[in-house]
Amino acid sequence: MTQHVGIIDLGSNTARMIVVQYQPYYSFKLVEEVKENVRLAHNVGADNQLQAEPMAMAIETLRMFSNFCRALGVNEVVAVATSAVRDAANQASFLAQVKEETGLDLRVLSGDEEAYYSYLGVINTLGVSNGFMFDIGGGSVELALVRGRGLAHTTSLPLGTVRLTEQILRSETPSKAELKALDRHLDEALAELDWFRPQGSKLPLIGVGGTVRNLAKLEQRAQRYPLDIVHGYTMSLQRVDEWATRLSKLNRNEREQLDGLNNDRADVITAGVLLIRALMQRCGADSLWICGHGLRDGIFYEQFLRGSQPPLLGDVRQFSVENLARIYGYNVVHVAKVRELSLALFDQLQSLHGYGAWERELLEAATVVHDIGVAVNFYDHHKHGLYLILNSMLNGYTHREMAMVALLTRHHRKGGVTDAGLGGVLAEGDLERVGKLSALLRIAEYLERSKSQVVQSIVCKIEKNQVRVKVQAVGDASIEIWDANRKTNLFRKVYGVEMLIE
Amino acid sequence: MTQHVGIIDLGSNTARMIVVQYQPYYSFKLVEEVKENVRLAHNVGADNQLQAEPMAMAIETLRMFSNFCRALGVNEVVAVATSAVRDAANQASFLAQVKEETGLDLRVLSGDEEAYYSYLGVINTLGVSNGFMFDIGGGSVELALVRGRGLAHTTSLPLGTVRLTEQILRSETPSKAELKALDRHLDEALAELDWFRPQGSKLPLIGVGGTVRNLAKLEQRAQRYPLDIVHGYTMSLQRVDEWATRLSKLNRNEREQLDGLNNDRADVITAGVLLIRALMQRCGADSLWICGHGLRDGIFYEQFLRGSQPPLLGDVRQFSVENLARIYGYNVVHVAKVRELSLALFDQLQSLHGYGAWERELLEAATVVHDIGVAVNFYDHHKHGLYLILNSMLNGYTHREMAMVALLTRHHRKGGVTDAGLGGVLAEGDLERVGKLSALLRIAEYLERSKSQVVQSIVCKIEKNQVRVKVQAVGDASIEIWDANRKTNLFRKVYGVEMLIE
Repeated sequence: MTQHVGIIDLGSNTARMIVVQYQPYYSFKLVEEVKENVRLAHNVGADNQLQAEPMAMAIETLRMFSNFCRALGVNEVVAVATSAVRDAANQASFLAQVKEETGLDLRVLSGDEEAYYSYLGVINTLGVSNGFMFDIGGGSVELALVRGRGLAHTTSLPLGTVRLTEQILRSETPSKAELKALDRHLDEALAELDWFRPQGSKLPLIGVGGTVRNLAKLEQRAQRYPLDIVHGYTMSLQRVDEWATRLSKLNRNEREQLDGLNNDRADVITAGVLLIRALMQRCGADSLWICGHGLRDGIFYEQFLRGSQPPLLGDVRQFSVENLARIYGYNVVHVAKVRELSLALFDQLQSLHGYGAWERELLEAATVVHDIGVAVNFYDHHKHGLYLILNSMLNGYTHREMAMVALLTRHHRKGGVTDAGLGGVLAEGDLERVGKLSALLRIAEYLERSKSQVVQSIVCKIEKNQVRVKVQAVGDASIEIWDANRKTNLFRKVYGVEMLIE
Repeated sequence: MTQHVGIIDLGSNTARMIVVQYQPYYSFKLVEEVKENVRLAHNVGADNQLQAEPMAMAIETLRMFSNFCRALGVNEVVAVATSAVRDAANQASFLAQVKEETGLDLRVLSGDEEAYYSYLGVINTLGVSNGFMFDIGGGSVELALVRGRGLAHTTSLPLGTVRLTEQILRSETPSKAELKALDRHLDEALAELDWFRPQGSKLPLIGVGGTVRNLAKLEQRAQRYPLDIVHGYTMSLQRVDEWATRLSKLNRNEREQLDGLNNDRADVITAGVLLIRALMQRCGADSLWICGHGLRDGIFYEQFLRGSQPPLLGDVRQFSVENLARIYGYNVVHVAKVRELSLALFDQLQSLHGYGAWERELLEAATVVHDIGVAVNFYDHHKHGLYLILNSMLNGYTHREMAMVALLTRHHRKGGVTDAGLGGVLAEGDLERVGKLSALLRIAEYLERSKSQVVQSIVCKIEKNQVRVKVQAVGDASIEIWDANRKTNLFRKVYGVEMLIE
């Protein structure tokens, strides 16, 4: 049964709520997000007292979230608070007031819990098993080390971007002395963590939070990157270092002019990027993975995979492909047959294409989602499929892989091979891969033309100048065979041999 | 309850089937289309005998369609045949064979019935009440005159493109003599119709069928038209005349090189466009409307609006907007409130924008579909909404109007005004309209931020340098008011005055 859960996260700067529609273990879709800049930690002094005005604003916002859930029929609400409330001297009275005025039981997360939920958000959405990770907020940064998809270490440090900016980088353009002081401050804070050091093998650093997302956006704009997706994007240490150096020299006004910078972040981006650089250097990572999912997603996965301990998807890639197909509704038996026939062609023609497990998995993924574009319009549904894949996301895949799955979908029916503007994400040989794999997918699709599983199996025979495909049918498959034979042009073009289906 | 109907249409050249998912009178969506080139009329001689091979091919295809329906659980199938079967001397034995081998009861349409269903397809999908219309097939052309959405006259003439090409335009490049003979032939055939003449007021000519769709595609490519939609596109007599002249001078190979020409049509496009020109000249139309829907759609509307006589949608525009919202699922009460608040702003600020009923209706349409992009992804759903509108179609709207509704949706949340590449479809002042209308929509959307209808009503007071909006709320609307006030930038920019919401 479809359920809705509302997940509220009250941070130092921002209050956010997401609403996710889901069927446990089966599929889900984010259907709402609301965000308000409540600045709860504003003017908190050395005595750690939340101030009256921000508290009132936070409570108004939580009441609005609560109305929102009621109006949408969301009966399951999880509300958490992070460092601002965690550190507040007047925490108890604030929580009581929240409860009284909004009915919400605000759960205050410890630093370790915060890191844990970020970790769940990361490991359920990226295809990474080992790495360091961070989640930068306004007040604190959570750090962790992930080993074999498990959480090996976590800690929370008071190095949030607002805090670093207000305490250290106070000038319009950071002064040399301030930059030095920040470096020293970060060095000292990180020096205490004996596990946040280079490990036996190189590990990537995975970054969560608005700062790292905005850094990725700056880089993508500068590179004229063809996708408008930051989740799963990667940056080298060198590029992070270049941005850190560049940002250090700009004043607020100059930062606001940067293409891709979110104005809300203009005052804290410099401290944030300097922190990211320091983290990369400290743990010896030479690549930064941007993760678009964190705390709230982690809390969601705990609901979604209730009962699993830890709540981790068995296979992020497979789940995300199936989730996409489930969201748009798909013909399970048709997909199963197209998958079977595509993989049979792939396996039996291995000596012609020479591809391995990686390409096979991409082809398989494309068979699952090949028809989702019908949700937009039956006509040109191959093109709409590409749009949906690139805009709904396939978690666990790199951008390059996602582009390949999208392009296979794009070519499953007709036309010559195009990169659809995605050339900048592909690597050498990928367009040839797209051609060779979609030639197979297209034959399989037309052998399943009537969507009634008339073709039971196929046997390919590779001859001198042609491939003969012998069809074993249940009943009359003459139209399927006729149609599939009309769709062999692409095969001929990319493999350089004829295909005869009989 | 959701039903599926399969509609099969066996023509002279092609057999097609569409499958439509629908709830009577409420909503529908085309979910499948299959097309096979069976060339049933191939080699039919003077004795009008369908030949054995094409008949066998047609029967195989119908069996495949039948399997298709069975596999998809489509239990309602309507199968019709047009001129090839209608004119066949061996019609009865063919129908018996179809019945025996596929189980399908093929209904042979008369020329008038064929014209009637085309008319239903046209009038239920275009915002036109009066006009001449044609539907060009391979064997025949159906003509009609529509008056006040009713069918005033119909006829069927043996002027299909395959017939004209085989009988008259037989050379690779049509000779002068052939062109003259064709003109004479068309003149004579049309001269007999006393109603297919200029009427009191100028009427447009509406064209249905692959030939006119392909003509539109040729023109769009030549004009670098920004939309990939032919339904609802219009062409002047002058442009049709220019294409007729140009095509007359090309041989088959040269025609195949034309950007946008479907290769299947390369042999018959010239006769088709010459026929269209002759029809326009004969009935005195100076504009040609391309309709992407015809016979099969007409049969569908008879099912969809069962019981209505004639089966016509009351309001094509309103239905298509609601259908789109229903397909993607929408929050009815939220939409109702955003519509109410948007229209209240529009009406109360009429003296500031000076717009009338036309703009008001576009704004209203946008309120209904403003959130459909969430079906793709909540993030950037305003952009996905634009994509869905332009690719799912809003029947009854001109391309310009559709682009405006898409752009209002595109701007309902944030950002400055852009034409999103649609400048070529807009007219003078439209981008200003988009700015002024979306400024209102955006305020309304944020006053409905919590989607819980907290804002009951608004009263606008136009002062010297500002507009004050007094909010009447049910309960606490402080966050809504706060958020809406943060969204007044666009209003200030496009109206040149401040807005204060309180």
